[in-house]
Amino acid sequence: MTVIMYTEGRDCEPRQEPFVTERYLEDFHAGQTFRSGRIRIEASHIKSFAAEFDPQPFQLDERAATDSVLAGLAASGWHTAAITMRLRVVSDLKPAGGIVGAGFDEFRWPRPVRPGDDLRVEGEVLEIRASKSQPASARS
Amino acid sequence: MTVIMYTEGRDCEPRQEPFVTERYLEDFHAGQTFRSGRIRIEASHIKSFAAEFDPQPFQLDERAATDSVLAGLAASGWHTAAITMRLRVVSDLKPAGGIVGAGFDEFRWPRPVRPGDDLRVEGEVLEIRASKSQPASARS
Repeated sequence: MTVIMYTEGRDCEPRQEPFVTERYLEDFHAGQTFRSGRIRIEASHIKSFAAEFDPQPFQLDERAATDSVLAGLAASGWHTAAITMRLRVVSDLKPAGGIVGAGFDEFRWPRPVRPGDDLRVEGEVLEIRASKSQPASARS
Repeated sequence: MTVIMYTEGRDCEPRQEPFVTERYLEDFHAGQTFRSGRIRIEASHIKSFAAEFDPQPFQLDERAATDSVLAGLAASGWHTAAITMRLRVVSDLKPAGGIVGAGFDEFRWPRPVRPGDDLRVEGEVLEIRASKSQPASARS
């Protein structure tokens, strides 16, 4: 198993519901917000992920990164996306049945993620729709 | 550094251009297609990635997976996405300056990726537009 090297911390106050186990459809409502803890990303994580999944010179080496379009070492967008998933999974969101997605309609990497950056996720429930194919499930 | 455990192989005939180094804007045209090699994904990869980035019981344990909405062990969608990036990077696509994306307008995981599945990527150049912010770059 891969050793998890990320530094995780909570940056939010203890929530009203400290023992959340699983949430069901009726536990969600539009306007509800969720915040994750934080994960700090270091240069070693960036290079390790890149070596495995995004082996481009500017992801692996500071000097090559300096000369690249990103003007310095930055995390692979897929690394940022994967960390975002971890932050969501370990947050209080916890839908019963798990977080399983079918895709995204809009997905953007607006700014480079640099060594030493702290990542956290904020989410808001916009709408709740019962799944057509699996009526016991919901999309939000 | 993470040890790369993936089995990679080429499933396509040797190309006309065996020594592709980097492609520039004028080397791309609409209708051009690219195929990657293959990567086989095993249960151990699925669990290792999930432990780090998507630690939900049904990603980590066969029994929990059997009872989940995916009805068996399946790769995290972010794992599939990351492998897709690797396949693109090591393919003959090789744009000068590297593969750097700003995001996706439509991104879907249509089917679960199971242990033993071979993954490969096929891509087609639909359109080439000079970047507005960085005229020396291009989007495709």
